[in-house]
Amino acid sequence: MLCQTDPIVGDIEGNKTKILADINQARNENCDFVIFPELSICGYPPDDLLDYSSFVDRCENAINEIALQSKGITIIIGGIERNKGVGRKLFNTAFILQNGLIIERIHKTLLPTYDIFTEHRYFEANAEFKLISINGLQIAVSICEDLWDRHNSFEYIQSPVNQLAKLKPDLHINICASPFHLTKFKKRQEVIEDCVARQDCPLIYLNQSAAHTGILFDGDSGVYNKQAQKVLDLPLFQEATAIYDDAVHNVPIQDHDYDDDMAILYQALVFGIRSYFEKMGFAKKALLGSSGGIDSAVIQALGSAALGAENVLAVLMPSEFSSDGSITDAEKLSKILGNPYEILPIKNAYDSILNIVQPIFKDTPFSVAEENIQARSRGLILMAISNKTGRFLLNTSNKSEMAVGYTTLYGDMCGGLCAIGDVYKTQLYELAKYINRNEEIIPWSIINKAPSAELRPDQKDSDSLPEYNLLDQILELYIEDQLGKEEIIQLGYDSQIVNRVVDLVNRNDFKRWQAAPVIKVSTKDFSYGRKMPLVAKH
Amino acid sequence: MLCQTDPIVGDIEGNKTKILADINQARNENCDFVIFPELSICGYPPDDLLDYSSFVDRCENAINEIALQSKGITIIIGGIERNKGVGRKLFNTAFILQNGLIIERIHKTLLPTYDIFTEHRYFEANAEFKLISINGLQIAVSICEDLWDRHNSFEYIQSPVNQLAKLKPDLHINICASPFHLTKFKKRQEVIEDCVARQDCPLIYLNQSAAHTGILFDGDSGVYNKQAQKVLDLPLFQEATAIYDDAVHNVPIQDHDYDDDMAILYQALVFGIRSYFEKMGFAKKALLGSSGGIDSAVIQALGSAALGAENVLAVLMPSEFSSDGSITDAEKLSKILGNPYEILPIKNAYDSILNIVQPIFKDTPFSVAEENIQARSRGLILMAISNKTGRFLLNTSNKSEMAVGYTTLYGDMCGGLCAIGDVYKTQLYELAKYINRNEEIIPWSIINKAPSAELRPDQKDSDSLPEYNLLDQILELYIEDQLGKEEIIQLGYDSQIVNRVVDLVNRNDFKRWQAAPVIKVSTKDFSYGRKMPLVAKH
Repeated sequence: MLCQTDPIVGDIEGNKTKILADINQARNENCDFVIFPELSICGYPPDDLLDYSSFVDRCENAINEIALQSKGITIIIGGIERNKGVGRKLFNTAFILQNGLIIERIHKTLLPTYDIFTEHRYFEANAEFKLISINGLQIAVSICEDLWDRHNSFEYIQSPVNQLAKLKPDLHINICASPFHLTKFKKRQEVIEDCVARQDCPLIYLNQSAAHTGILFDGDSGVYNKQAQKVLDLPLFQEATAIYDDAVHNVPIQDHDYDDDMAILYQALVFGIRSYFEKMGFAKKALLGSSGGIDSAVIQALGSAALGAENVLAVLMPSEFSSDGSITDAEKLSKILGNPYEILPIKNAYDSILNIVQPIFKDTPFSVAEENIQARSRGLILMAISNKTGRFLLNTSNKSEMAVGYTTLYGDMCGGLCAIGDVYKTQLYELAKYINRNEEIIPWSIINKAPSAELRPDQKDSDSLPEYNLLDQILELYIEDQLGKEEIIQLGYDSQIVNRVVDLVNRNDFKRWQAAPVIKVSTKDFSYGRKMPLVAKH
Repeated sequence: MLCQTDPIVGDIEGNKTKILADINQARNENCDFVIFPELSICGYPPDDLLDYSSFVDRCENAINEIALQSKGITIIIGGIERNKGVGRKLFNTAFILQNGLIIERIHKTLLPTYDIFTEHRYFEANAEFKLISINGLQIAVSICEDLWDRHNSFEYIQSPVNQLAKLKPDLHINICASPFHLTKFKKRQEVIEDCVARQDCPLIYLNQSAAHTGILFDGDSGVYNKQAQKVLDLPLFQEATAIYDDAVHNVPIQDHDYDDDMAILYQALVFGIRSYFEKMGFAKKALLGSSGGIDSAVIQALGSAALGAENVLAVLMPSEFSSDGSITDAEKLSKILGNPYEILPIKNAYDSILNIVQPIFKDTPFSVAEENIQARSRGLILMAISNKTGRFLLNTSNKSEMAVGYTTLYGDMCGGLCAIGDVYKTQLYELAKYINRNEEIIPWSIINKAPSAELRPDQKDSDSLPEYNLLDQILELYIEDQLGKEEIIQLGYDSQIVNRVVDLVNRNDFKRWQAAPVIKVSTKDFSYGRKMPLVAKH
């Protein structure tokens, strides 16, 4: 039985309880094996919990307790253990449990330390390769990155796939915690095909299906035959178990449409929001500032799908610069979705703050300071409602504006989760159209109007920024593809615009430093995978 | 000549210009060698700038240009270079330049990947050891962590010191970028004594003296004789060069009082604030909210020392819950220091916000929501002044309150640099007394009164928290020493208090996620060195 679990990071007791229930079920179904993902005991990534010796003790104890339940069944499960030799303190281990004992330990060889990964921070690497013999099968067991030896931006010195292939396994089991991004499915298929081709045996690929803060794991586990065709397929973004029977599962299947980016993106973001609330132990009660613009509209739709429309309070906070259309659009959205909403004009807050700072502002002209007072008054009101009602504030910043700093720190950057913070503005329009694919959920007037922050009269985003089509292309080249200014210009982009956009990205690291966590959906997000120096000149 | 430089991260052109000037000076002084710290070209830590191929090109080009200036002098300098073989893409390299050429490259062996360090993210490790022969000397060259092979929380598999010692060097040169914390000097002395004992030759230890965001490098470079006595000593927290002459520098010296923690802490924080402003290119103009409490008073004193009192605007924002004493204390502080100050009562902002949220608040009792409206109104006013005047907002949160979340997100957590965010409350009192060691700078009434957030009538911090003496002890055991609850309780602390404090720390990761960068002064800070899962249960 393959158990595509959804552990809670750090919750050893809770995770163990669920694991034991799965083992029981597998035994009742007369399975030979029951398999769990990488670091199932503590959840992945456990981060610096691994530095706590008492935490490591509890992880090791949990494995020993689970081993006691391995009578009559073979359990393969990921956990941590202490390195008793020289080197880093821990191993990332696949434990093989049988007849009440730990009969074998396989340590992870390739320890990813790039993008969101930090495994060298904690683990020592394996350097020995062996098969394990169970029920007459010679099995190769590996952990996550061990399969990706040739599929990184650099080539690892060790090749676990080649080393294991030399030993001629009958079956390869890879347990993993492999994070999601929108192009992951294609990449994963390539990796699996390459692995199967090199080893000439079937592969069981078992991933967790989980959201840990904003890092998503999409599941997508399954069994692949010697032709790298999937013959058992587990769901995306969903805890699930499945029993593999070679008498039954010998026909290639394909359950998911991996090519429908917007369907996948929608599913991922809804999963991410829902998991955040469930795992933080929040009641499913949220609020957001509903401006009548596309960002908040998409968040309102996603939040409603994740938590129930009745649980998402929309707060409309018009100022003197808000257009009538924005207010009616925002009201229409709440009515269509069925969200409770309140209209709270901010004029009096704005005026009273201006009055307080008058001794300093004197008669200086209207500037970004006045614009930001509006954005921050809204943030303050939303946080006050959050504190009073226990509703969690959903942030509405998108990746394009976070990139160039077209957003107000402590204003529209308020909120605990930035669900679309890894989604470019142009992708947001596509996503809105996907949400509207069957009927008008987000009013078309919201999708079709020119984007504006409405912080001064007749403001348009395009007054300050290049058109989003162009902006997002340059951003992706700089952020995801990590090209420098000159390289981007050489691709044919206007040098003045490229310089301006890249400088804006660099200058706004200070805002992103204080941003809420995003839900990662791209190959390079701002919260976990990108680590740039703040005080710097480049 | 030893060049204890202060590079700007990423500023290859600027750093190169300074390096070339130092080389010229060394040549004019007839030095045989001129030595620069680890990664002098790009500054340390360059973080993901290293992922940009164009950035790597520019670093490599800079080394080639510097090599051209090595006629008649040997240059030893840290930089990066591409790994042309298998493995991670880069090496962290000490280049030996002579007669216009790169004559030797020594790669770093031990790549720290713990606490603030992420070197495995970018670099491949060295595995070969050799001496370089210059001017008849057989010289061992190593890079930073290579000296610390036995002084980590784990033992490295490789020992560069032992490997190099086997080759019998006449001299060992370690170039580094070794970050500061308050107990670093003692640790460094141990490491150097251990190294010198194993190799039986003198050691040149060359560190950068720099602040990169809030990570400080204290310099403290020097030359050690075979008895591990310092015979040439460079200053702390200061860019400097010094010429070593073995005819002159053969007497042990000790310029610094490493034991005066508060003097060192004061120096470190002032250096950190000043560097932040200089390197961000800000005019030296700051503001802060001056509450009459100890936190803002210490920041006001530190800011004045770093930037000049005339450049630090104190904003007093009393509410109905502010005591008269707080306002007079805050005024007195500004008068003593010579800061400009403004008194801006927040009552009208508070009332207008309450009035706006009335449809939701209705007649619910006064709660944390109303408290936070006050804190956030102050944050909003400070940010408005910052935006209007171009003054940079200094945050005033200390480590104790950041730890337990006794602070308001988007309220008193506003600001771009959290200079005392790695300083516990009890340390702050000591620091305040140090500041007052010669005369009353911080009014003694501020230091002697019971701490209060003054957000409701007669509030004291001790209403919600254990006394700071006890709180800080538990925090240090949990955060710095990484002991679990049970282990702390076993040391004799009350289990109820320990559970409550540790739970508070864990529950408030969401606030710290959005906090401004701190200046690191402890072995475990919240901004760079501690990486805990947010959505978790433990």
